[in-house]
Amino acid sequence: MSLARPVFYVSDGTGITAETIGHSLLTQFDGVDFDSRRLAFVDDADKARRAAETIRQAGERAGARPLVINTIVDSHLSALLAESGALMMDVFAPFIGPMERELGIARTGRVGRAHGLVDFQAYENRINATNYALTHDDGVDVRYEDADVILVGVSRSGKTPTCLYMALHYGVRAANYPLTPDDLDYGELPKRLKPFRRKLYGLTIDPDRLAQIRQVRRPGSSYARPEQCRKEVAVAESLFRSEGIPVLNITHSSIEEIASKMLSALGIERHLY
Amino acid sequence: MSLARPVFYVSDGTGITAETIGHSLLTQFDGVDFDSRRLAFVDDADKARRAAETIRQAGERAGARPLVINTIVDSHLSALLAESGALMMDVFAPFIGPMERELGIARTGRVGRAHGLVDFQAYENRINATNYALTHDDGVDVRYEDADVILVGVSRSGKTPTCLYMALHYGVRAANYPLTPDDLDYGELPKRLKPFRRKLYGLTIDPDRLAQIRQVRRPGSSYARPEQCRKEVAVAESLFRSEGIPVLNITHSSIEEIASKMLSALGIERHLY
Repeated sequence: MSLARPVFYVSDGTGITAETIGHSLLTQFDGVDFDSRRLAFVDDADKARRAAETIRQAGERAGARPLVINTIVDSHLSALLAESGALMMDVFAPFIGPMERELGIARTGRVGRAHGLVDFQAYENRINATNYALTHDDGVDVRYEDADVILVGVSRSGKTPTCLYMALHYGVRAANYPLTPDDLDYGELPKRLKPFRRKLYGLTIDPDRLAQIRQVRRPGSSYARPEQCRKEVAVAESLFRSEGIPVLNITHSSIEEIASKMLSALGIERHLY
Repeated sequence: MSLARPVFYVSDGTGITAETIGHSLLTQFDGVDFDSRRLAFVDDADKARRAAETIRQAGERAGARPLVINTIVDSHLSALLAESGALMMDVFAPFIGPMERELGIARTGRVGRAHGLVDFQAYENRINATNYALTHDDGVDVRYEDADVILVGVSRSGKTPTCLYMALHYGVRAANYPLTPDDLDYGELPKRLKPFRRKLYGLTIDPDRLAQIRQVRRPGSSYARPEQCRKEVAVAESLFRSEGIPVLNITHSSIEEIASKMLSALGIERHLY
């Protein structure tokens, strides 16, 4: 029996960049069993030596050479890591040279720098957008004048997490409005949404999946019954169609994909925080 | 006068990986003026040709060769992009070969694959953790038994966004408890927190920065007065010290850094969603 191949995401900062690209690389190799760990804030020689030792030991235990996805910029620290004997994949290294030649200047980066100095303005944008999403969740506060986008959909169709994600990562003020059974009976766009038609975006979901999600939330309720879910989804989708509201089906998408597709569709250009 | 250097983050998926690594690369080159854009979901030949044309035109307008940070896996689509004449930086390309040799198998990845098929279990973990964070925000619901971590700090010290980030990205159930002026007068840990001492994590912040944040929220209030902020922060910090609660100062950290440091400190091993 062979153990899983050890993989380490190593960084002088949070490790998010290393883990993001590393995870993408691993998904390219179907069927291989990986055992991955993040080693964050490795920003001095002592920590780099300790990290190298951790990596070396993991390789020994697994009986396989570890893989290291490394975003540490300081080549001295990277060299210490390499003493672990792992296959080193330095995420930035292949690109720094070509960029230096293209731009005609040497890089100025320092340790930890790659992961961003904190930017008060960015922090404020994120926090304000998050507060906005929290106070405009589920139709409680309906002053939609300031919204960048208003997500509309039946209960449990993914509105809240999508709004929070867009706020935290893009500083987008995303409100959401749940289509209640009353709204669906009414058969047209709820009155309070009409003035904001151009900001509306519909979310929909496979009814069986919806029933599954609602079942976890309120087991045995009529709200979670498959027929109820099918009916609500059908009416909501027909409403989106007749009102000309763009729609995304979230069933097979991650929160990141939903947010990214929606921003593209709305033509909202925002940088990722 | 020269225009900013055009930069494109191009992806067959959300573009998040491309933008994350691209942003890190750009921060290595201080003083260069970049104009960056994301081109997401470029997953067929038509879209790749259109993207190449957009990139080519941006270079012409700026009078400078564009930089492309590309996470498209399909080499045929990448070749179409390269016809833009941009400096192509293919994020995965340098690592696929070494990984294939190390693992002894060819990669199995397909277009869009790098960014993950949706995983229902992962979605549910994120949503459940997010719901938990929402219902355990600001001490409203105090059933902390299920919390992975409970953030403690004065009002506006960054508890809510940190909790939401940890929920959305790590599936961590993070509750938070705001230290009110009453709690601070009481001078010891609020009673309801005592049984959960090992899950507590303190957040603190530079008092001047806190005053600035509160001032935006409630202009001219006594709550936002610098003396009030200094007093609250001093008492909260002394409480953390006397109760032996670990503390992070958020003033110079991004939300990502706070979350990542806290997980490291608590020994919570979670993968990034």
